[in-house]
Amino acid sequence: MANNIAKKVSWSGEGTPLLNGAEERRYSGQPSGGSMFHIGKMSTVDLEEESVTPEEDPMRRRPSEIPHNEKLLSLKYESLDYDNLENQLFLEEERRMSPMSFRCLEICRWIICGLIGVLTGSIAFFIDILVENLAGLKYDVIKEYIDKFTEAGGLSISLILWAVLNSAFVMLGAFIVAFIEPIAAGSGIPQIKCYLNGVKIPRVVRLKTLVVKVWGVIFSVVGGLAVGKEGPMIHSGAVVAAGVSQGRSTSLKKDFKIFEYFRRDTEKRDFVSAGAAAGVSAAFGAPVGGVLFSLEEGASFWNQMLTWRIFFASMISTFTLNNFLSFYKQKPGELSSPGLINFGTFDSEHVQYSLYEFPLFICMGAIGGILGAVFNTLNYWLTIFRIRYVHRRCLQVMEAMLVAAVTATVSFAMIYFSTDCQPLKKGSPEEYPLQLFCADGEYNAMATAFFNTPEKSVRSLFHSPPGTYNPQTLGLFTLTYFLLACWTYGLTVSAGVFIPSLLIGAAWGRLFGILLPIIFSTKNSVWADPGKYALMGAAAQLGGIVRMTLSLTVILVEATGSVTYGLPIMLVLMTAKIVGDYFIEGLYDVHIKLQSVPFLHWEAPATSHWLTAREVMSSPVTCFNRVEKVGTIVDVLSATSTNHNGFPVIMQASSSDEPGKLCGLILRSQLIVLLKHKVFVERVRSRLCRRRLQLKDFRDAYPRFPPIQSIHVSQDERECMMDLTEFMNPTPYTVPEETSLPRVFKLFRALGLRHLVVVDDQNRVMGLVTRKDLARYHLGKHGLEELDLAHP
Amino acid sequence: MANNIAKKVSWSGEGTPLLNGAEERRYSGQPSGGSMFHIGKMSTVDLEEESVTPEEDPMRRRPSEIPHNEKLLSLKYESLDYDNLENQLFLEEERRMSPMSFRCLEICRWIICGLIGVLTGSIAFFIDILVENLAGLKYDVIKEYIDKFTEAGGLSISLILWAVLNSAFVMLGAFIVAFIEPIAAGSGIPQIKCYLNGVKIPRVVRLKTLVVKVWGVIFSVVGGLAVGKEGPMIHSGAVVAAGVSQGRSTSLKKDFKIFEYFRRDTEKRDFVSAGAAAGVSAAFGAPVGGVLFSLEEGASFWNQMLTWRIFFASMISTFTLNNFLSFYKQKPGELSSPGLINFGTFDSEHVQYSLYEFPLFICMGAIGGILGAVFNTLNYWLTIFRIRYVHRRCLQVMEAMLVAAVTATVSFAMIYFSTDCQPLKKGSPEEYPLQLFCADGEYNAMATAFFNTPEKSVRSLFHSPPGTYNPQTLGLFTLTYFLLACWTYGLTVSAGVFIPSLLIGAAWGRLFGILLPIIFSTKNSVWADPGKYALMGAAAQLGGIVRMTLSLTVILVEATGSVTYGLPIMLVLMTAKIVGDYFIEGLYDVHIKLQSVPFLHWEAPATSHWLTAREVMSSPVTCFNRVEKVGTIVDVLSATSTNHNGFPVIMQASSSDEPGKLCGLILRSQLIVLLKHKVFVERVRSRLCRRRLQLKDFRDAYPRFPPIQSIHVSQDERECMMDLTEFMNPTPYTVPEETSLPRVFKLFRALGLRHLVVVDDQNRVMGLVTRKDLARYHLGKHGLEELDLAHP
Repeated sequence: MANNIAKKVSWSGEGTPLLNGAEERRYSGQPSGGSMFHIGKMSTVDLEEESVTPEEDPMRRRPSEIPHNEKLLSLKYESLDYDNLENQLFLEEERRMSPMSFRCLEICRWIICGLIGVLTGSIAFFIDILVENLAGLKYDVIKEYIDKFTEAGGLSISLILWAVLNSAFVMLGAFIVAFIEPIAAGSGIPQIKCYLNGVKIPRVVRLKTLVVKVWGVIFSVVGGLAVGKEGPMIHSGAVVAAGVSQGRSTSLKKDFKIFEYFRRDTEKRDFVSAGAAAGVSAAFGAPVGGVLFSLEEGASFWNQMLTWRIFFASMISTFTLNNFLSFYKQKPGELSSPGLINFGTFDSEHVQYSLYEFPLFICMGAIGGILGAVFNTLNYWLTIFRIRYVHRRCLQVMEAMLVAAVTATVSFAMIYFSTDCQPLKKGSPEEYPLQLFCADGEYNAMATAFFNTPEKSVRSLFHSPPGTYNPQTLGLFTLTYFLLACWTYGLTVSAGVFIPSLLIGAAWGRLFGILLPIIFSTKNSVWADPGKYALMGAAAQLGGIVRMTLSLTVILVEATGSVTYGLPIMLVLMTAKIVGDYFIEGLYDVHIKLQSVPFLHWEAPATSHWLTAREVMSSPVTCFNRVEKVGTIVDVLSATSTNHNGFPVIMQASSSDEPGKLCGLILRSQLIVLLKHKVFVERVRSRLCRRRLQLKDFRDAYPRFPPIQSIHVSQDERECMMDLTEFMNPTPYTVPEETSLPRVFKLFRALGLRHLVVVDDQNRVMGLVTRKDLARYHLGKHGLEELDLAHP
Repeated sequence: MANNIAKKVSWSGEGTPLLNGAEERRYSGQPSGGSMFHIGKMSTVDLEEESVTPEEDPMRRRPSEIPHNEKLLSLKYESLDYDNLENQLFLEEERRMSPMSFRCLEICRWIICGLIGVLTGSIAFFIDILVENLAGLKYDVIKEYIDKFTEAGGLSISLILWAVLNSAFVMLGAFIVAFIEPIAAGSGIPQIKCYLNGVKIPRVVRLKTLVVKVWGVIFSVVGGLAVGKEGPMIHSGAVVAAGVSQGRSTSLKKDFKIFEYFRRDTEKRDFVSAGAAAGVSAAFGAPVGGVLFSLEEGASFWNQMLTWRIFFASMISTFTLNNFLSFYKQKPGELSSPGLINFGTFDSEHVQYSLYEFPLFICMGAIGGILGAVFNTLNYWLTIFRIRYVHRRCLQVMEAMLVAAVTATVSFAMIYFSTDCQPLKKGSPEEYPLQLFCADGEYNAMATAFFNTPEKSVRSLFHSPPGTYNPQTLGLFTLTYFLLACWTYGLTVSAGVFIPSLLIGAAWGRLFGILLPIIFSTKNSVWADPGKYALMGAAAQLGGIVRMTLSLTVILVEATGSVTYGLPIMLVLMTAKIVGDYFIEGLYDVHIKLQSVPFLHWEAPATSHWLTAREVMSSPVTCFNRVEKVGTIVDVLSATSTNHNGFPVIMQASSSDEPGKLCGLILRSQLIVLLKHKVFVERVRSRLCRRRLQLKDFRDAYPRFPPIQSIHVSQDERECMMDLTEFMNPTPYTVPEETSLPRVFKLFRALGLRHLVVVDDQNRVMGLVTRKDLARYHLGKHGLEELDLAHP
């Protein structure tokens, strides 16, 4: 049944023609029913084409499973409709609304954003309190045992206790993720990136995901893994936003009958971006950084009022967290903890930097870029290994427990063999100072870094006075923590990579700062403070791993609470990004690619002006007539080989060979609602027994439209007709066949389209461009490359 | 010869039909030459139409001059092409380029942004130094005279000296603006807003404008007007960017032959937005605020890499200024002055605020909104008065001088009659303490506010200890400065409104803070510091006047150097905006409207779903054939009654009555270059004596394309043909006639279009939508309103 046309395009300037397994590339259409229309003819102006069946060319046959590499795009991901479906129903509703009702909607949007902020802040507070208390309990118990056994001998018992406690917590965390909601694994940032980009990731913004995420992150952080609780806040905020804005919970089967107007992808996306921003804001105390994060990741949809609302949600979120924490700490009104992580205040006398330090910063950026690339490459291999061999749930839980035990063991060993004793000062930041084999009144410096929550270790690296750590401690810590963090990311636990990255970077940054005066053998007062270099190292390492730029700068600036470091942080992040990008993409992008998500970047690849809509589009296209037989529609929707989601609606062609003129576009989800409500016209007596369908019916079904299999259509009903005029979008965006790929891409990306109809100069449907058709092209090492499409 | 079709649309839900002077509304076409095509038929599905000649309806006749109200859109403003002209030449060039050359371009963009930052920072430094020194000189001289005459009597001599000195400086400033470059008047922010929006404001980014702007702002600030030097920095940065990015100066007739790729509107706009951000950054030491300003004002063009470059330019700009200032102050390396204005550091013990203060902040926001609305309304009337009666240049200069003299006199009188004496403390922020009639060791508090540059007065209001000002002084100062600032904005001098707004707000905010404990008759420690309320008042007043939201919050947060005040500042700005918007638009928008600029807002008016492309479009459209007679083209371009800039290119219709199929779009500027280079095909011997035109020829002519009158075409040449195929954009964006206005608007705005072709289902040209057609609709008090179009 496949349309076996292999296409060979020879890229000028590259020499070697690229072949692609085109059998999965084109939408295949089943020629059943005369009313469906197929465009068999393909233009051959710019293409050399040849017919190759899969049998003739076994090399290109569709792989039976996803070969876990990034040269494929999965077809299992659908797109979201970020372009409003302007059909007659919608226009009628909009026209009925008075200016006053638009104003009410606007007020509702503000209220929702406020709620998002409050809820996200509360969740952050909840996580923070639970983690702090549980971790405190854990460290207290272990410290007691260690202190007891240090002199008595038999420290291995405390090691076992530590490892078992960690594994137990992590087992809980991994269990709920693996068995209840696997999408809650990881930081959730790649998923939210994809959502804002317009890719529908199943179950990503459900209530269940949120619950699992929150508990998962608590257990994994308390379990002592090399993870942070900040990344998951972004995902949590997004789920909160998606839930609140819809005014109902499908999981809980509770519909509050409010905010019904917002039950569509466009509006929901806007709120989700506010939620993500609120999450960043609560995590780092960085409201502006949150706004920029949302815009950097999502925004083909910048709009002044929307951005302002996003900012509002962010502000409320950090304010809520701050207020709750201040009450919890019994210092009401002292708003000093705007985020989950707080870098502490850098003394104004130490924040100075000079022009001649800039080369050093750039150098640190380069180191961060290289280390980040190493991190990402190791994690890439590890993830491929995991996809291949660790896909059973029990194995996943066991791996997580193993990592927890190993983390405890390695930490213990590092502390045990460390000889870095530091005098215990009054008012030092040590919460759990381990004496171990140090003299009385001293503590083990290695334990400061390992025997603590990562957030506190970061702060200690930033602010401890010079001499707190000796270089060996820092070097060893960097190495082990680097490997642990790399192993940990991608486990089936819910946790983030921000804090481990910061911690690694802070450690080697501080090392760098300590070594500087030694290398240059000068006693320069500017170099005296290693905390500054720890900050730069943290920025470099984080930038090298995640490669965010503007938003990260602002987040770090806001987290330090001072704008003075803006320029050096930016320089460092930029260098890290440039250096890192030379080797491998950012961690999130690596994972998005490994999931074969059809992600659309900001612009079409630079060298893609060779391609036009004609080469890019899918063709032939399954079309419907304006008035279509129900049986045909059911057959098309049921065809499992194809899984089309959008169908151009055409004017009845005079002869069946000629393509029909485009007159609209209708979605699978709309057709399903129509079929469910049996909006049929009987063939004989026109317009009988027909219920007037309203926009509300579509909204009620959103977003979980039933599958076609669940809708029963009798044989009689199959003979009825369905009039699509009222429900289709009568003015879909179209482009001519000669449009260049960058132009198609710009239109698609700027408007957040899902389907773009390609027409000829008679306005006849020639093809359809979808997200997958555009995401397939990317700029590789050897010029433009094309990805293959594969069913999951 | 206008096309006298008056259109009457009755808006459902509104009752009263709106009439518009439609004779200037439609593009009129001259039916000369059979190859030109006119669509005479207009669809009448949704419209009632009637033919009314201007004679029949004198009320609607085109006004002979602009009646200075905001119900008109001027036709004198053209649009910029923010959509790339993808013709064959362009595509060929892009296809010839290797990935490496794209990378080089990217590096060039970064270099340019760095240069923009350095130059903008240097200009800021230059302005700052000159203003400081000249103003210091002036105040020293006057202080000396005042001190001398206070005891000797005859203070009127020092008043006269003050007034004359001020007037002299202001005369210089007003003279160069009025006689050399009137576009340099004001802050330049409305102009840059329009530019980024896509409106071509003549001469706005020229070198001459920059020079006049810089000197103008120096003279007006030194002249003691109630103005700031911050706003103009944004304009200056934009001019720098436009100049640097083009690699040549048309004014200086110097072409460096670099950056030729960037010689088109799209690229230039990107750099101008970076320049504007660099300007904000240098003015307020707010690099993130600068980025957000550019995005808030301009951005239909958000793009990650671009934003990152904008941020880079901003950072470099503030860093340059900071470095230069630190060298100038002989404290190299101490980077403490990131901007022209510096709010100083708020003590961390005073920055506290409590939840119960929020109603107070909201209240202050409301006051700011109301005062801002009063300011804008007064300034609106004043501006109309000025447009009507003060349009001669000498009058403008004289008005500016009058304002300067009055400012000096009023200040003098206020100081003279003030009895608010404060003890002169060691280390107080007073730079020019005036003793006047105070006792020895005391100084006049009113003089602190008036006898100083506004920047220093603002800082004094923020940070002076409680008790420095008494309530009467603050009240009187607010009132007089409010009126002075209102009178000053709109004068023919180059100056900004930011600082005066901040100053007014700080004054009444401080007053508010002082009155609070009195009203509530409590001794609350939180209320003890009036500086906090001064800051909130400043935010409220500025927000009430300019109504910027997100960027202003960030600018103020960055200028205070602490993120703690973020939430209250946002609350205050939001309230001010909501309250102010209820009465009148923001100051910049008022001025944009008074200039009748076709400005496109973020979204189509909420209630505009009634309208479709059919009602909105201009029709009939002047079209060209693919191969067109030179004479026809020259005639169309020369027609003074119409001033079309874009022409759809159509396929030769079979019969001349039927509309032709669209096959491209060509611009006036392209045709002019073609005519200039005589790219003709002789009718008999085809393709003879034809020079191959390159993209370079178009770039060399950009942006000052010669007028058609300057191109001589002989009678023989008129008989030649011109083949437009290679030069037209073969894939213009199109919409069907039924597309709703919001959808058209979204497409137009998101892609930065200049012309959008409306086609029927046969792909035949039915009309053309331009910026003016969309900007005409706005939401008034009584629902949707339509503006008239008028020639200047």
